[in-house]
Amino acid sequence: MSYNTFGQLFRVTTFGESHGPMIGGVVDGCPPGIRLSLAAIQAEMDRRRPGRSRHTTQRREPDAVRVVSGVMEEGDGLVTTGTPIALVIENVDQRSKDYSNIADRYRPGHADYTYDAKYGLRDYRGGGRSSARETAVRVAAGAVAREVLSGVTIRGALVEMGGDRAEGRDFSIVDDNDFFAPDAAAAARWADRLDAARKAGSSLGAVVEVVAEGVPVGWGAPLYGKLDQDLASAMMSINAVKGVEIGDGFAAARLTGEENADEMRAGPDGPVFVSNHAGGVLGGISSGAPVVVRFAVKPTSSIRTPRRSVTRGGEEVDVSTTGRHDPCVGIRAVPVGEAMMAIVLADHFLRHRGQTGC
Amino acid sequence: MSYNTFGQLFRVTTFGESHGPMIGGVVDGCPPGIRLSLAAIQAEMDRRRPGRSRHTTQRREPDAVRVVSGVMEEGDGLVTTGTPIALVIENVDQRSKDYSNIADRYRPGHADYTYDAKYGLRDYRGGGRSSARETAVRVAAGAVAREVLSGVTIRGALVEMGGDRAEGRDFSIVDDNDFFAPDAAAAARWADRLDAARKAGSSLGAVVEVVAEGVPVGWGAPLYGKLDQDLASAMMSINAVKGVEIGDGFAAARLTGEENADEMRAGPDGPVFVSNHAGGVLGGISSGAPVVVRFAVKPTSSIRTPRRSVTRGGEEVDVSTTGRHDPCVGIRAVPVGEAMMAIVLADHFLRHRGQTGC
Amino acid sequence: MSYNTFGQLFRVTTFGESHGPMIGGVVDGCPPGIRLSLAAIQAEMDRRRPGRSRHTTQRREPDAVRVVSGVMEEGDGLVTTGTPIALVIENVDQRSKDYSNIADRYRPGHADYTYDAKYGLRDYRGGGRSSARETAVRVAAGAVAREVLSGVTIRGALVEMGGDRAEGRDFSIVDDNDFFAPDAAAAARWADRLDAARKAGSSLGAVVEVVAEGVPVGWGAPLYGKLDQDLASAMMSINAVKGVEIGDGFAAARLTGEENADEMRAGPDGPVFVSNHAGGVLGGISSGAPVVVRFAVKPTSSIRTPRRSVTRGGEEVDVSTTGRHDPCVGIRAVPVGEAMMAIVLADHFLRHRGQTGC
Amino acid sequence: MSYNTFGQLFRVTTFGESHGPMIGGVVDGCPPGIRLSLAAIQAEMDRRRPGRSRHTTQRREPDAVRVVSGVMEEGDGLVTTGTPIALVIENVDQRSKDYSNIADRYRPGHADYTYDAKYGLRDYRGGGRSSARETAVRVAAGAVAREVLSGVTIRGALVEMGGDRAEGRDFSIVDDNDFFAPDAAAAARWADRLDAARKAGSSLGAVVEVVAEGVPVGWGAPLYGKLDQDLASAMMSINAVKGVEIGDGFAAARLTGEENADEMRAGPDGPVFVSNHAGGVLGGISSGAPVVVRFAVKPTSSIRTPRRSVTRGGEEVDVSTTGRHDPCVGIRAVPVGEAMMAIVLADHFLRHRGQTGC
Repeated sequence: MSYNTFGQLFRVTTFGESHGPMIGGVVDGCPPGIRLSLAAIQAEMDRRRPGRSRHTTQRREPDAVRVVSGVMEEGDGLVTTGTPIALVIENVDQRSKDYSNIADRYRPGHADYTYDAKYGLRDYRGGGRSSARETAVRVAAGAVAREVLSGVTIRGALVEMGGDRAEGRDFSIVDDNDFFAPDAAAAARWADRLDAARKAGSSLGAVVEVVAEGVPVGWGAPLYGKLDQDLASAMMSINAVKGVEIGDGFAAARLTGEENADEMRAGPDGPVFVSNHAGGVLGGISSGAPVVVRFAVKPTSSIRTPRRSVTRGGEEVDVSTTGRHDPCVGIRAVPVGEAMMAIVLADHFLRHRGQTGC
Repeated sequence: MSYNTFGQLFRVTTFGESHGPMIGGVVDGCPPGIRLSLAAIQAEMDRRRPGRSRHTTQRREPDAVRVVSGVMEEGDGLVTTGTPIALVIENVDQRSKDYSNIADRYRPGHADYTYDAKYGLRDYRGGGRSSARETAVRVAAGAVAREVLSGVTIRGALVEMGGDRAEGRDFSIVDDNDFFAPDAAAAARWADRLDAARKAGSSLGAVVEVVAEGVPVGWGAPLYGKLDQDLASAMMSINAVKGVEIGDGFAAARLTGEENADEMRAGPDGPVFVSNHAGGVLGGISSGAPVVVRFAVKPTSSIRTPRRSVTRGGEEVDVSTTGRHDPCVGIRAVPVGEAMMAIVLADHFLRHRGQTGC
Repeated sequence: MSYNTFGQLFRVTTFGESHGPMIGGVVDGCPPGIRLSLAAIQAEMDRRRPGRSRHTTQRREPDAVRVVSGVMEEGDGLVTTGTPIALVIENVDQRSKDYSNIADRYRPGHADYTYDAKYGLRDYRGGGRSSARETAVRVAAGAVAREVLSGVTIRGALVEMGGDRAEGRDFSIVDDNDFFAPDAAAAARWADRLDAARKAGSSLGAVVEVVAEGVPVGWGAPLYGKLDQDLASAMMSINAVKGVEIGDGFAAARLTGEENADEMRAGPDGPVFVSNHAGGVLGGISSGAPVVVRFAVKPTSSIRTPRRSVTRGGEEVDVSTTGRHDPCVGIRAVPVGEAMMAIVLADHFLRHRGQTGC
Repeated sequence: MSYNTFGQLFRVTTFGESHGPMIGGVVDGCPPGIRLSLAAIQAEMDRRRPGRSRHTTQRREPDAVRVVSGVMEEGDGLVTTGTPIALVIENVDQRSKDYSNIADRYRPGHADYTYDAKYGLRDYRGGGRSSARETAVRVAAGAVAREVLSGVTIRGALVEMGGDRAEGRDFSIVDDNDFFAPDAAAAARWADRLDAARKAGSSLGAVVEVVAEGVPVGWGAPLYGKLDQDLASAMMSINAVKGVEIGDGFAAARLTGEENADEMRAGPDGPVFVSNHAGGVLGGISSGAPVVVRFAVKPTSSIRTPRRSVTRGGEEVDVSTTGRHDPCVGIRAVPVGEAMMAIVLADHFLRHRGQTGC
C-alpha cells in the first residue's frame, strides 16, 4: 500500500512539490554491483528538462541530480551497494507569485478542486504535488533502471500531436528535433501547429509510443502481476495521461482472430513471431518480441483562453491561466514514458528472477 | 508484492485453474457489518456464466458460489464480520480430452509459449491459470465490493464489436440482449456478424465501457495511487484486454485545451461539471462526475482457422483450435469489467477513509 | 497491506473460521517445478492435529489437506506450476452448542472484547477467526515452503513448560513424546504437571525453540527487511505468543561485548563462527550459522476456574470456560513455529535471489 | 515488498549511510491537516542525538531536520498536506579515516561479513547502511507519527543495563538522567558500571521498555495484521535488538491460566481490566489498556578488546575496534523505541479507520 511508491522489487518512492526546496526519490531494491554513470543519468534528465526549445515551458531548471546514498565510488564512476539509492534534485526557478491568483479558484482540467475536496487544503503553489515537476524524479530513477536491464534498449517517441500522426518510426532522429518525433516531416508540421496553438492561448494533446527491444521471454505473470498491467498502471500514473494501449491496442478490437494472432516460426534460439500485434506480451508475460506501449496525453489544462469555473467559496468565475506552461505536455512525457518502461521492466526482471531463479 | 492479488485495502486473491476441482478467492479487508445477499452475488455470476446464449462458449458451469468464511447469518441473509471472505466455485464441466492435442504445441495468441518459457512447464489443460475461467471469481468478489459502495451505481456495456460501434447508451437494456449492448440495433447487427464469424471459424474483438455513478469527489491520490491508474491496471489484468482509456481517452489527445477542459458551475452541493471529458478523474482523484472507463478486448485467439506455429520441441506446425470457445470474449468481459470497477472503487473508498477519516 | 497474508515473495493468505465449513489458504509465489508429496504435507499436519494425546484438545479433526490448484501430477507426486497453490481443509468436528453460553460474555484472556469493540460484532462460534484452528493452514503452507528450501533443516521443540526447562536438546526424540520435548526427562515431568493443571481446571504456558540449519549466508536485508525482524513478526503472529527472541535473546542483554561477540575462524568454505550467540543473524542477514528462534506462549486462556468479567451488555459476571481445549497451547505451537520458520526462510530465499541473482 | 520501508498506511522509507552527505526519509500516508512543530521534532532528535553525555558516542551531529515536502506553513507552524513528507538530515561529522583499518576485516558481532557475502561488496565507511545513524530518521518520522495520534502518550525508559534492573517506573524522570532511567538509583549505579566497561574496552547490553497510554480498544487485526506482531517487527528492526516481548512476555509462559488472565470489570466507559499481563493487546487487537513492549539490546559489538576474526581474503586476524562508539547502544535506543511505537500505532490507527470507519 502506498500513494507515492511505484514497483514491487524495484521500487521508486518520490517526494517533493514544484515549489518546495527540492524534489527527490528513493530507489529501493536495486541490485548491488550495478555501475552508474552520473553523466548518463544527467543526459536523461536533460532530455526532459524544461526550456529545451520554445515548445516547452520556459521555467529554467538545471535538474542536476545528486545521488546521496546507495552507491560507492569505483574507478571514475559509481557502483550500487544494494542499499536504497536516494536521488535529490534542487528546485531553482520557483516563482511563487505567478500562482497567487489561482490560490482560491479551481482551474478547469486541473486537480485543484479534487485535491481541495480530498485533503481539505491544497498546495496551490505551482500545482504542488500534482505538478509534472515530479516526473523529473522518474527520469532519474528510470536511468538507474536502465542500467539494471543489460541487453534491453528502450526508445520513445511522440507519434501524434493534435491529431496529426507521424508516419515514420525512425527512432534514431527523435533527439534531433524539438518533439521527440520519429519522423522529420511530422516535426516540421507540429512546430507550426504548436506555435499557432501557443499564440492562440490554447494547447494540444499528443500520443507517445515507447518500445523496448531485447526483453527476454518470460517476464510478467498471468493475472495480477501481468507485465502489460503494470505498464498500463505506470503510464496512467503520468500526469495528463488518459489512455494506454499495448501492441495494436484499441485497433486489435477491430481485427479478426486470424489477423490478430501472431504466427510463430522456428528460429535459431527458439520460436520467433512473424508479426507483433500483441506488442510483445502474451497472457501477461513477455514473448521476446519488442514490448510496445502507447499512451494518450490530454492537451495542457493551463491555457490563456478563459474557461468558466468556481472558487473555493463557491462563486462562479472565469479562469485563464497565464505563467509558464508547456503548450503540449505530451512532448516532455516521452522521456518520462521511457523511464516508466525501464522501471517496470527492471521490476519484472527482479520478480521473475526471484520466483524462477532465471 | 503478489502475483494473484489485486487491491490494497480491499484485496482480492484468486486461485484455481480451469480444469482443477475448484476455483475461488479470498476478499480481505472488507468492512464488517456489510449485508450480503447470496442471491445478488449469484445474479452477477449468472450474467458472466458461459452458455447464456449461442454467442458464448457452450461449457456448462452453474458457477454456484459458496461463501465459506468471513460472514455470519443474520436474518435471511449474511453479514460480513471483517475477517477474510472466502469464495469457492466448483468446476463441473471440465473435459480434459478436448485439450490433449494442444499439450505440445503453442497456440498463436495464447500464453502457451510464454508460460512454458517462464515456468519450464505449463498446465495445458484448458489454459490452466490463464483461462478466462478465473474471471468468475472476480465477478463474485465484485459483487461483494458493490455492497461496500452504498450510493454508487456501476453499469457496463459492450459498445463496439468487430469495429461496429453502438450508437446508443441505454444501460437499462443491456441485460435484455445477448451482448450486453446498450443499443438494440447494434445487438441485432452483432448477432449476424458473430454468427458469421463463428461459422467461419473466426472470432471478433470488442470494446467494453463501464460507468460508475455516485462516486463522491476525493477518492484516489495524486501519483502512484491514482484512481485511473488502478482502473487501468484492473482492466488490463482481464484476459485479452489490450487497451484502456478514461473519459475521452485517446480522443482527448485530439482535442484542444479549450475543448477538453470540463468547465465548472456552482451547484447546490458544490461544484458541478458542465461536461465530462475527464471521465470523472482529475489528477488521479475522483471529481464527483461519473467515472468512465473503456477497454479493448482482442478477438478470441482460439480459432478453427489454422495458423502457423511451433511445438514445444521446436517443430513447425499448423494449429487450429477446436473445442468450446467464446467467439467474442469481449461479451462476457462486461460483467468482469463492472466487477473490477467495483473492486477498485471499494479499495479507494477504504484508502481514502483511512487517510482522511472521511 | 493485508490482514490475512504473511510474506512478500512467498506469500501465504489464509481464510476460514473454526466453525465454518472449511479453512484454507493460498500460497502465492512458490517457484515452479518444486515436487510436493501429499504424504509429507499430511505428516506435518498430523503432528499439529488435535487429539494426538490426552495433553491436547479432544476435538477430532482429520485435517486432511486438499491441494486444489497450482500443481500438476508428475509420476507419483505433484509438481508446482508457479501459479497459486490453494490448500483446503474441511472442518469435521464442529460443535456449535459448546460455545452458546459464551456468545454474550467476554472471556478473560481471549479476544472476545477486542473483536467486538473493533468490528461491532463477533463470531463467537469457537473463537471465530481467532481460533488456533487457523494454524493448521500455516502448517500445510509451511510444508510447501520446506520443499522450496532444499538443504535447509528446520526442527522445533518445546523447551520449557510452566517454568520448567528442558535441559537437553535432542531434536531426534521430539516426535517420540507427547510434548515435542527434546529431553525425555522433561517430557516425563511435564506429563505430570500438565495432568495436574488440567485436573485443576488450570493451564500452563510454554517456550518453543525452532532451529534452522543449512541456511546460507546472505538471506535478509539491513533494515526493514531483516530476517530476524520477519521471524519476530512470524512468531508473534501465532496465537498466544507474547515474546520472541533470536539467539541468546534477552540473555544477550546481560552479556558483555566480549562474551557476546561470536568470533570467526577460517573454514574450508569461508568464515565459520566459534559460537552462536547471535542465533545465525547479523545485521538482519543470515550468517551461515544455525538460525535460532524462541518464543513464549502464554497459558491457555480457556480455563474452568472462574474469572471475573463482563457481558456484552456491561453486566459483571464470572466466566469459566468448559469444552474441549488444550491445557497448554504451547505444545501444538511447535509444528506451527517450524512452519512459520519455513515460510519466512522461503520468502527470504526468493527475495535474496530476486535482488542479487544468487 | 520493500527493504527500506516500514508500515502500511503510515509508511516510513529511509535512506542514507553513516558517511554519505545526508540521511533522510519519506513519510507517506500521513493524514492532511496535522499540525507539525519543527521544534517538537527537533526536541525528539535531541534526545537521540550522540554526545549528550560521556556515556554515548562522541560523534558530533546536530541532527537538524529539514522538512522539504508535504507541508505548508500555517500560522507559526507547519500543517501536513496529505502528500509525502520528506525529512532530510545532513551528516556533519563523518571521519572516514577512523574506519580505514577495518575495510578488509570482518568485525565480530557486526554485519561486515554478512553484508559482504550478500551484496558482494560492502560500504565499510562507518558501517554504511547498518550504522545506527539511520535511527535518527526513525525518530524524526516518529515525531510526525505522534502528532497523528492525538490522545496517545508514548513513553520509553531503559529498564535494565548489564543485567542490573531498574526497580522504579517513574517515567517523569527519564529525561533527567543520562540513561533514560525511570529510577534515579539505577541511573547512578549504571553510570559507574558503564564507566568501568568503557575503560575496560568492553560494552554492555540493555533492556528498553516502551508504554503507550490512551490507545483505544480496537486497533490491530486478528492474524497477520496483529498490533503486537507489528510491534515485534518494529522493535526487532532496530539495530542490535535480539528479543521483544509484549506485556509479561516470557514471564507469561511461567504463569498459570488463572494468574495470566486479566479480569474485567464494568467501568463508566466500558469494560476495564483489573490487571495488564497482556500488555494491552488481546488477539492482536488493542484492549484499551496501556500497550507495553520491552526489547533486549545486545552489548555494542564495537569493543577495544581484541577478538578473533578473519579478513575478506580469508586470513585469520585479531580485531579490536577503536573510534567513537556507544559503550551501550541500548541507551539511545530508548527514543528510537518510542518512535517505532508511534509509527506502528499511527499505522494501525489509519488501518482501523480504513476498514471500519471509526
